[in-house]
Amino acid sequence: MMNFIKAIKAAWQEKNSLLCVGLDPDISKIPANLRNLETPLFEFNKAIVDATADLVCAFKPQIAYYSASHAERDLELTIDYIHQNHPGIPVILDAKRGDIGSTAEMYVQEVFDRYQADAVTVNPYMGTDTLQPFLDRRDKGVIILCRTSNPGAKDIQDLDSNGKKLYQIIAEKAAKEWNYNFNVLLVVGATFPKELKEIRFIVGDMPFLVPGIGAQGGDVESAVVNGKTQKGTGMIINSSRGIIYANNKDDFAKAARKAAVNLRDEINQYR
Amino acid sequence: MMNFIKAIKAAWQEKNSLLCVGLDPDISKIPANLRNLETPLFEFNKAIVDATADLVCAFKPQIAYYSASHAERDLELTIDYIHQNHPGIPVILDAKRGDIGSTAEMYVQEVFDRYQADAVTVNPYMGTDTLQPFLDRRDKGVIILCRTSNPGAKDIQDLDSNGKKLYQIIAEKAAKEWNYNFNVLLVVGATFPKELKEIRFIVGDMPFLVPGIGAQGGDVESAVVNGKTQKGTGMIINSSRGIIYANNKDDFAKAARKAAVNLRDEINQYR
Repeated sequence: MMNFIKAIKAAWQEKNSLLCVGLDPDISKIPANLRNLETPLFEFNKAIVDATADLVCAFKPQIAYYSASHAERDLELTIDYIHQNHPGIPVILDAKRGDIGSTAEMYVQEVFDRYQADAVTVNPYMGTDTLQPFLDRRDKGVIILCRTSNPGAKDIQDLDSNGKKLYQIIAEKAAKEWNYNFNVLLVVGATFPKELKEIRFIVGDMPFLVPGIGAQGGDVESAVVNGKTQKGTGMIINSSRGIIYANNKDDFAKAARKAAVNLRDEINQYR
Repeated sequence: MMNFIKAIKAAWQEKNSLLCVGLDPDISKIPANLRNLETPLFEFNKAIVDATADLVCAFKPQIAYYSASHAERDLELTIDYIHQNHPGIPVILDAKRGDIGSTAEMYVQEVFDRYQADAVTVNPYMGTDTLQPFLDRRDKGVIILCRTSNPGAKDIQDLDSNGKKLYQIIAEKAAKEWNYNFNVLLVVGATFPKELKEIRFIVGDMPFLVPGIGAQGGDVESAVVNGKTQKGTGMIINSSRGIIYANNKDDFAKAARKAAVNLRDEINQYR
């Protein structure tokens, strides 16, 4: 696949969508008739992917949902299935990795070589040298936590240092230091529209991965209005639970499609 | 197993050792005759564990070394082997996890239920609510990144906020807010002795996991002198490469034992 940011830009345009579907399947929440299959999480994902692929700019599996339940194989199959059957839709592996150089190299192998993800989320707390092995993979997207969507995000990320908040410092470093391969993106939560606007001002057109719509309470209109670029793009807006669990009966995929259409359209209304 | 901090205190005393051996096996670095076995990383670890168990207060596998190479089974077997054959030696899973509530719950399942680790390393960047699912497991140790051992640690962790550095703020929160179940520890690198001393002053007897000895250049004397408690304990001092790759010939386990004896004794000299 081409450089991740080029791939996302192409997908925004081709699909006319900023929507990303989060593939976070929980064995206790997927339809009962799938639970006894050999790879139930993959079978669930496959149905969701096929039902929504024409509506999204990306898919985003969260790795904890697989590693918690011994389902690495389901994750491998899911990413491979998307690449084989829906080329042009990049896959973001949400893993929030971060460690020293030699270990970071192992995480790079995990996400990009083993799972073949096109982009990964990373945590900046440990500093530049821990991000470097990811950043050096110029074909891959590196999505750095900046201002997250959870209530406790303020505890650390809002600390003030010489008149700047930590998330603003991260945004500046992302734009000025870390983007040497033009493959950096930021996580900015939909639940904090003021911060979306501030960070957009700092980083120009750098794309955002935006969690927090739906179950977490983020408002679509204020997220899009505050986070978009002048071109009306720049955002990968994720919804997981609101789409994949739209209902958990036999027609779950149809319900997921309907929820995805609605959210895509609502987003497009404010671009 | 009893509460992790009680278990560590018992191990410090019983073994007269602050040493922790890091189980970070890389398939390309382990002896050639092990590489074709079904679970080569486990077989390597088993030999290291049996050769060093009487010399250590803990073992610490780093999860990336397993997930990079499809070796989850090796990690499960390793932790189970230690628990079955060397009871009383707690296992720290170095995973540096951190995510929002619903995902954090999945990571809790991964590290404590699936892998049966006794403690885990976590990243505080996302705030208190993301640490809570870990902290709520009162029998388990939660080891929060504070001042890490890598050169880039200063980039974010040394930012000054109202006269305090970020790592000092993390240390204060760890002692005052996050330790409600008396199960919190901190990661403080051996490469920064001044910071070890400062953080020791802030948190009293809270135990530290101390990486950075050996390959990373940390000095044993200055780490122990600056990081120890008044009782001459309070530190879990990790060495990985310096011990497990002491040599990579057939007698690698014997060489690992010798390196572990030397490092344990060197540490004890300064307690």
